Amino acid sequence: MISFSCDYLEGAHPRILERLFLSNMEQHRGYGQDRHCEHARQLISKACGRDDLDIHFMVGGTQTNMTVISSVLRPYQGVVCAQTAHINVHETGAIEHSGHKVMTINTADGLLSAEQVRDKIASHYADPNIEHTVQPGMVYLSMPSELGTIYTKQQLTDIAQVCKENSVPLYIDGARLGYGLCSDLSDMTLADIARIADIFYIGGTKQGALMGEALVIANKAYSKDFRYNIKQNGGLLAKGRLLGLQFEALFEDELYWQLSVHANHEAKRIHDALVSKGYELYTDAHTNQILVYMSADKLETLSSDFSLDFWWREDDRVLVRICTSWATKSENTDRLIAAL
Amino acid sequence: MISFSCDYLEGAHPRILERLFLSNMEQHRGYGQDRHCEHARQLISKACGRDDLDIHFMVGGTQTNMTVISSVLRPYQGVVCAQTAHINVHETGAIEHSGHKVMTINTADGLLSAEQVRDKIASHYADPNIEHTVQPGMVYLSMPSELGTIYTKQQLTDIAQVCKENSVPLYIDGARLGYGLCSDLSDMTLADIARIADIFYIGGTKQGALMGEALVIANKAYSKDFRYNIKQNGGLLAKGRLLGLQFEALFEDELYWQLSVHANHEAKRIHDALVSKGYELYTDAHTNQILVYMSADKLETLSSDFSLDFWWREDDRVLVRICTSWATKSENTDRLIAAL
Amino acid sequence: MISFSCDYLEGAHPRILERLFLSNMEQHRGYGQDRHCEHARQLISKACGRDDLDIHFMVGGTQTNMTVISSVLRPYQGVVCAQTAHINVHETGAIEHSGHKVMTINTADGLLSAEQVRDKIASHYADPNIEHTVQPGMVYLSMPSELGTIYTKQQLTDIAQVCKENSVPLYIDGARLGYGLCSDLSDMTLADIARIADIFYIGGTKQGALMGEALVIANKAYSKDFRYNIKQNGGLLAKGRLLGLQFEALFEDELYWQLSVHANHEAKRIHDALVSKGYELYTDAHTNQILVYMSADKLETLSSDFSLDFWWREDDRVLVRICTSWATKSENTDRLIAAL
Amino acid sequence: MISFSCDYLEGAHPRILERLFLSNMEQHRGYGQDRHCEHARQLISKACGRDDLDIHFMVGGTQTNMTVISSVLRPYQGVVCAQTAHINVHETGAIEHSGHKVMTINTADGLLSAEQVRDKIASHYADPNIEHTVQPGMVYLSMPSELGTIYTKQQLTDIAQVCKENSVPLYIDGARLGYGLCSDLSDMTLADIARIADIFYIGGTKQGALMGEALVIANKAYSKDFRYNIKQNGGLLAKGRLLGLQFEALFEDELYWQLSVHANHEAKRIHDALVSKGYELYTDAHTNQILVYMSADKLETLSSDFSLDFWWREDDRVLVRICTSWATKSENTDRLIAAL
Repeated sequence: MISFSCDYLEGAHPRILERLFLSNMEQHRGYGQDRHCEHARQLISKACGRDDLDIHFMVGGTQTNMTVISSVLRPYQGVVCAQTAHINVHETGAIEHSGHKVMTINTADGLLSAEQVRDKIASHYADPNIEHTVQPGMVYLSMPSELGTIYTKQQLTDIAQVCKENSVPLYIDGARLGYGLCSDLSDMTLADIARIADIFYIGGTKQGALMGEALVIANKAYSKDFRYNIKQNGGLLAKGRLLGLQFEALFEDELYWQLSVHANHEAKRIHDALVSKGYELYTDAHTNQILVYMSADKLETLSSDFSLDFWWREDDRVLVRICTSWATKSENTDRLIAAL
Repeated sequence: MISFSCDYLEGAHPRILERLFLSNMEQHRGYGQDRHCEHARQLISKACGRDDLDIHFMVGGTQTNMTVISSVLRPYQGVVCAQTAHINVHETGAIEHSGHKVMTINTADGLLSAEQVRDKIASHYADPNIEHTVQPGMVYLSMPSELGTIYTKQQLTDIAQVCKENSVPLYIDGARLGYGLCSDLSDMTLADIARIADIFYIGGTKQGALMGEALVIANKAYSKDFRYNIKQNGGLLAKGRLLGLQFEALFEDELYWQLSVHANHEAKRIHDALVSKGYELYTDAHTNQILVYMSADKLETLSSDFSLDFWWREDDRVLVRICTSWATKSENTDRLIAAL
Repeated sequence: MISFSCDYLEGAHPRILERLFLSNMEQHRGYGQDRHCEHARQLISKACGRDDLDIHFMVGGTQTNMTVISSVLRPYQGVVCAQTAHINVHETGAIEHSGHKVMTINTADGLLSAEQVRDKIASHYADPNIEHTVQPGMVYLSMPSELGTIYTKQQLTDIAQVCKENSVPLYIDGARLGYGLCSDLSDMTLADIARIADIFYIGGTKQGALMGEALVIANKAYSKDFRYNIKQNGGLLAKGRLLGLQFEALFEDELYWQLSVHANHEAKRIHDALVSKGYELYTDAHTNQILVYMSADKLETLSSDFSLDFWWREDDRVLVRICTSWATKSENTDRLIAAL
Repeated sequence: MISFSCDYLEGAHPRILERLFLSNMEQHRGYGQDRHCEHARQLISKACGRDDLDIHFMVGGTQTNMTVISSVLRPYQGVVCAQTAHINVHETGAIEHSGHKVMTINTADGLLSAEQVRDKIASHYADPNIEHTVQPGMVYLSMPSELGTIYTKQQLTDIAQVCKENSVPLYIDGARLGYGLCSDLSDMTLADIARIADIFYIGGTKQGALMGEALVIANKAYSKDFRYNIKQNGGLLAKGRLLGLQFEALFEDELYWQLSVHANHEAKRIHDALVSKGYELYTDAHTNQILVYMSADKLETLSSDFSLDFWWREDDRVLVRICTSWATKSENTDRLIAAL
């Protein structure tokens, strides 16, 4: 049985395990204040082209989102995002649990537009009983989106401009940031993201690490006392070195980008096969995620050899997600293509 | 200047002021444990046709909603309601502030259907990663709805049935319950509400009281330790007698229903005038609220003598709410009709 | 049966009822934006000797405390107060419910000292794992304290100085502020309070109003968007006029101070009688509250004619609170003294 | 420089790294639903002598505590614990952040007594205004305590009895459970803990794992929907296998106990050396933690070669924690003893 159901099926890239092994008996101060974390911060800063970034290593995405968002918002503020945003649908209401409304915008493809964000914010300020409604206090978006689609530099710049005009920070969830930036449709670098976003994170869990996300606070206004927030939200890993050394491995020798390119390449091969065989795609993805319609029968047949990710049923067909990763073996991609 | 902008413009019905005056120097135990509260509970129980109800007096609607909903839900649960629900749009995210997601359903007229509720709940339980999504833990609806529309007994009974099948309580926001039950379209009594809902409240603020809502917990499963929740949410009025004596006045001699009938009657006159003059109604309201389209010019002309409630602009016209109440004077209704 | 058990036994001072009656059919905009609230704000500003205050009318004390404290603190901050503080013992954990730790200091008499506050704050900043502990973000104290003791101007000024040095605001709970400022031991005026505190409230509920507290934000840094916080915490009274007109009555013609002086005078008479009869006082109170030890037998005897407030048992004696108020009749005081 | 400052200085026991390496390219379902987690659950169940336990793997202690406590308590309830409890002093108010008061009891040695717990609970129910105070809803204790002291079976059984009588669950924080149970003073086994506690966790982070705690819900009443709580609190690790395989390693071949015995043995050697040299101990510890007074000069001298954990200054001496662990090398213990 070969699984293409998600991008966190395997452990970690061998170079990470090697570092874990080599550093194991070193004694380090806890909570992210060790040498490996420090070095990883330097590597990420360099990749971002800036030396004034505030970088923290977190264990997982939901934890990162809830910590960041609740640290920025005032009690009466909410976070604006797409209806399909991870924080809206797949985090068990962690944002609401922290006291804040998730203010959704309907989108066709999981991507917000600057116009939509402007309207959402403006509609609040136009309300005559303004204090009876939740104030937009942050804009959240994922790059790539939960539907595998990506933003262009212009689109993100426009959204950031709306945010700036309204004094609302822009937060980018980069759980799959590498896959997004390495997409053949992307015209951005990590440095662009660091310039455009106030806060963002560089995903590790889905990008080759055992676990971990590198949170980057690019706008110093949101840095004050941030470690208190991490601790209070249960996210301050005692052996923080585990996170640091993984990002050291990922950001030395361009490993992070190589793994991203590999996953996208394998996805592209599947994508092209699907198109050539007449399957209908849900979104025209160019990252490591493919959303495709197939008959329920076809899915059942495939399921004897492959594990895919069932999303939902629509009449007589089903929507399925096929996911590659840094760990996808080319021969497994070949097998899947043959079976499609 | 005459205002039809809402139903809490004036103070209170004279009989309430009279009681306030007469009881003023009585010494009473605080926090709702006085003789007036006790008597008001008896009167409401009688009007509900039951003697096993747990009744609490609260100061306002938002406070009541947040206290009830957060007392019932487990941390990972949310409350299902219409997109237009008061808790979703006009309570500054009080429900989210208490840690819970508001799970909305789009409706044309502000009314939920049993089918919609069933689907909403079922879609949660169909999710393969069920614990990644918020669990529906309560259904909230308003009678009448925020758009002035009302539920029939059959509609509410069907929703309650879906709730029961899913072990999810039904909570009815009755901020304007009197106006709703006295609508010419209503086929329900207060006793029906007490039989159908697990929890509901009988609005006082918009129905002739200075302030106050009578919360009725009809399902004993939700009564335990409820007063702790009221106190913790800042809702335990020190001089609880003020709430008790107002509901004594409202539920003696049918005053509550008389005031409701009066408001609806005045609204009906305005409604009929609007229809006869060709205005387009947003919803065909039969309570004390009328949502009507008019030209921006017409609204401006009216605004020299009348205060109406502007909701929003749609192209070249505006949506306006006209509201009557227990206090509306017939001669003012006459003037408004003449001016329309 | 005559009660001296608390200071919110009766309704309201007649001048308040009169205003309620006279203004009843006026039509007013809701939520504290009416003419009466505006006028009351002017009167309070004048009494505070400043015209730059941000004043809001709230319904009750717990609601006021939770709204103020949660609006000021960052998520990882707590509020420093005496172990006996109302927010620590008698608000059902409302502060913790809003997400914040109550950081207590043990005191003999319910009063904080500048030294204690300095040490409490310093001990946090001395912790090597600083972000593992709650950061002090506000100082809360009550004037008079929950034990009926009062601060001198010097004591409050010293505490305020420590607060300023540490960039931590000082919030004064004035549920019984009138009784405190009119104490024969007090050397302060309302203007002093407005100069010393960043935020404070002037109690109405226990000082002659039906209900209501006037919240004064003296430090503009805490004013931004405050009304959102009130609404979100369920504290924005629809008919806000009710609060405004009560504070109009209290702050016209010095009524607030007259009522305070009266209550203190009656308490002094009881206090002197207790002392002359050899009762042991718990704190040497000079406001409207007396904490006194008596034998359990004596309390039982008194209880046939008087309702007093039992606090706790200590060996063979009990601690009892005797409370006067604006409404205490002198003949009832006479009767109590005779019975002691 | 050799560190004895805490028990999470190194990576993980080699057998854990080996498993990580061997299982790395296996494809596993996420979120704790893989084969390794399943196997680890069986091993732990067996060590607990029961097959009806609900076991979850969490990443860290603060996260575990906040998830468990907030899942059990009703909004108006708090958790009873020692003043020195980890949740009270070193989790940045995570419990309060989840909405609940930490209700502390002063202790001399970090250990609660049944009598203290009974009194704490009884004092709540004796309050005449019961709903104005926080209701005790859970008892939390650490075994061993934060001061390195341990409970006997009788002591824990007595506390559990008080809990049962009051329908309040007992939760045991076992961050260092192995060190506690392997103390020469302990008369308990893991099976005893599983019989006495309603919920407890078996620490991994400080006991030889990279990270991770095994949470055991022994009382089924608290199991319902627990995974939602984990996810909502950001604690559901995507690659849950990492936690499962670590506990597989620890609970196969008694590794967990061997590592605990080793750490305690090294601590005993240091403890005996301290006693023989006349140092004053703060608590007479028999686990892996030693709290000892020394002169500030002595600490400074030691600090050139050893890193110890400074707790606080008392007059002219300092309190220092010396910590061994599964990873402590005997030759380093020798060196420290020589230097003392």
